[in-house]
Amino acid sequence: MKNNYYKNILLEMFNQAVLVSHPSNIMKNYIPDIEPSGKVIVVGAGKGSAEMARSFEEAWYNKGYKDLSGLVITRYGHKKKCKNINIIEASHPVPDQAGLQATKEMIKLLKTLNEEDLLIVLISGGGSSLLVLPIDGVSLEEKQELTNSLLKCGASISEINSVRKHLSKVKGGNLASYAFPAKIITLAISDVPGDDFGVIASGPTYPDNTSSINALAVLDKYKISCSKNIYESLNSEVNETPDKEDKIFDRSDFKLIAQPQNALLKAAEVSENNKFSSLILSDSIEGESNDIGMVHAAIVKQVNKYAQPAKAPLCILSGGETTVTIRNPNGKGGRNTQFLLSLAIALDSVANVYAIACDTDGIDGSENNAGALLYPDTLERAYKLGLNPKKYLERNDAYTFFFKLGDLVETGPTYTNVNDFRAILVT
Amino acid sequence: MKNNYYKNILLEMFNQAVLVSHPSNIMKNYIPDIEPSGKVIVVGAGKGSAEMARSFEEAWYNKGYKDLSGLVITRYGHKKKCKNINIIEASHPVPDQAGLQATKEMIKLLKTLNEEDLLIVLISGGGSSLLVLPIDGVSLEEKQELTNSLLKCGASISEINSVRKHLSKVKGGNLASYAFPAKIITLAISDVPGDDFGVIASGPTYPDNTSSINALAVLDKYKISCSKNIYESLNSEVNETPDKEDKIFDRSDFKLIAQPQNALLKAAEVSENNKFSSLILSDSIEGESNDIGMVHAAIVKQVNKYAQPAKAPLCILSGGETTVTIRNPNGKGGRNTQFLLSLAIALDSVANVYAIACDTDGIDGSENNAGALLYPDTLERAYKLGLNPKKYLERNDAYTFFFKLGDLVETGPTYTNVNDFRAILVT
Repeated sequence: MKNNYYKNILLEMFNQAVLVSHPSNIMKNYIPDIEPSGKVIVVGAGKGSAEMARSFEEAWYNKGYKDLSGLVITRYGHKKKCKNINIIEASHPVPDQAGLQATKEMIKLLKTLNEEDLLIVLISGGGSSLLVLPIDGVSLEEKQELTNSLLKCGASISEINSVRKHLSKVKGGNLASYAFPAKIITLAISDVPGDDFGVIASGPTYPDNTSSINALAVLDKYKISCSKNIYESLNSEVNETPDKEDKIFDRSDFKLIAQPQNALLKAAEVSENNKFSSLILSDSIEGESNDIGMVHAAIVKQVNKYAQPAKAPLCILSGGETTVTIRNPNGKGGRNTQFLLSLAIALDSVANVYAIACDTDGIDGSENNAGALLYPDTLERAYKLGLNPKKYLERNDAYTFFFKLGDLVETGPTYTNVNDFRAILVT
Repeated sequence: MKNNYYKNILLEMFNQAVLVSHPSNIMKNYIPDIEPSGKVIVVGAGKGSAEMARSFEEAWYNKGYKDLSGLVITRYGHKKKCKNINIIEASHPVPDQAGLQATKEMIKLLKTLNEEDLLIVLISGGGSSLLVLPIDGVSLEEKQELTNSLLKCGASISEINSVRKHLSKVKGGNLASYAFPAKIITLAISDVPGDDFGVIASGPTYPDNTSSINALAVLDKYKISCSKNIYESLNSEVNETPDKEDKIFDRSDFKLIAQPQNALLKAAEVSENNKFSSLILSDSIEGESNDIGMVHAAIVKQVNKYAQPAKAPLCILSGGETTVTIRNPNGKGGRNTQFLLSLAIALDSVANVYAIACDTDGIDGSENNAGALLYPDTLERAYKLGLNPKKYLERNDAYTFFFKLGDLVETGPTYTNVNDFRAILVT
């Protein structure tokens, strides 16, 4: 009875968080009020970008505006039917020839734009591997090897990005250059902790704040050797990325249309309607799912014992992107079910705690579930079924654990993605 | 200038947190108001227990009370000079013969107590390995092997404890039984996340809420094989631990005299005196130091970006016991410096953040420092010295990193221990 009552609140919170982040609900707010005089081209890349294109087109024609055209690259299986925008599928997370070819076609399309024209760029998570074209003389493989070396030597993400952007014809603002002097509006859904515009899909239309000198300094700092080609390319002004002073950004707008924080705020609203205070810890938590589960458990205990950092009834919310270091490649599950199982074990059946953890894209890792639910009797029911929760956690098999309990959350792909969603009700 | 200003606030917070947890400041509050009619014996075990004994004795004689006697076991190097309490040093964390022998002598002493007598028991972290005596027919090695098997198979700490307590003559309330029918007052300093009285030093004077049936069920649940000796011992009523209905607890008080939460509250008071609001996340955070650092960074960013979970100027406080999974046995440092370096990297030089992380016992891991300090320019100064922060983090060499920056906090052993102390000022 109680389980069902709180389950409904938790599912409502998650559903609302997804809906407020969904292209079909928000795209209509981003159609220009005045119809452009020139032609309109829509491009984009990302796992949610086909749905963004479909929604944009729908809202566009609902306004009675003239025909547009375009090309959007999405992941295999993420296609959506559009009227006039060509949707091309390619490989993610490892780029393939389909992505390369589509990127080349996109550039051709952009080069047809003139001053009175409008370019709409729809980007979302995954865009970085779908929209891909290395600079001349550098192969995709070479670029990937270099990225891997940088990852291994401990370079920061921003350092790695400064190198990658200078070896790409489309990242780091480069895509925008082909559209000059057209007006550009970029609409982005953020799945990046921190919502950095230059990081979402590697910022194809956003000014780069690093120069090739920075990129070379990164290679030097970490003593990374690279081919003569790459070295010379980084030394050549031809491949410099455009910075914010560049004229191509004079008529360029960048709008975040969905982001983790808004999803959390919407969920907070739902929790408050159900008489829970809300506490948003952070929209950008990173780290091992197991440890993030333990921290959340410690905070829940503090709420129960000392009414800190806030008193119950409380809904603790957080977003971001946790990580699972895989110990057992045969285990089933993703970072959200792993988080939830770790939370369950650390809480050890606290009587007044209900929780949900889901990926807002509807797919938590390897299986077809978005995430799962946690109840006060989760461990008790598991023991009755002969399940050893710690073993499932160690085996990275949290999907199977929650599957056997009947506590998975299944939505199918949501065609949006504002990363992880976690909500804990302390009643 | 700014660095020094906030450094002083952070050090003051840590110092006050330690002082409010220190035997020499609090023991006087726990001397009985009326001098007992019979004899008074003081026993104890733990890393802080010699200082507890010294402080207790001092406060006792300050009241003009008659002579007491006693025996307290502490870790090698943690002896404090007492007038009439015999302080014996033994091995921690792996028990040795000195501990075994001292425990036997302590039991002899307890057996001399009568109804009009008073027993004072002083326990603190580490007591579990110092106060040690397996039941007859079971060797120390056998008991340790069994504990290791349970740890490996994923048993919970409470499950492991239920087995350990039933194989000990002193844990799980057993120590109290030798003192019956004397009045018993246990004074404890908690270094245990959650402050469970049955867990601090394995609760030698605290009723056990598990029975030997539970202990056997644990072995059965995890399919742990054990010697015939152990099996028969667990099946014998002779070795049952006393529960809360047992008459030996009729005249027994258990008082927590210092605990993580009080240390955090004191630090919160200091931060508020310096015009910071305070937010206590939890007094019992566990998990990998690296990941706990990342979570704290995410919360700091949320404060700066969205004034959530609370607005700056804010002091974020937390306690507990994090863990470092050692990747490089040659690295120097402990869990608090590791946490702080991870926080520094995740924050990536946020301009308005100052932090401290220290072990309240004054020794953070392998070296002689209590912890370290973090400033907005920590990474910048590190780069200038040619230090690669990520490399130091990976090598578990956070001590060396902060040593080279001159940012260690060194107090020497504090002779108390309420676990980790973390404070982050967001100005």
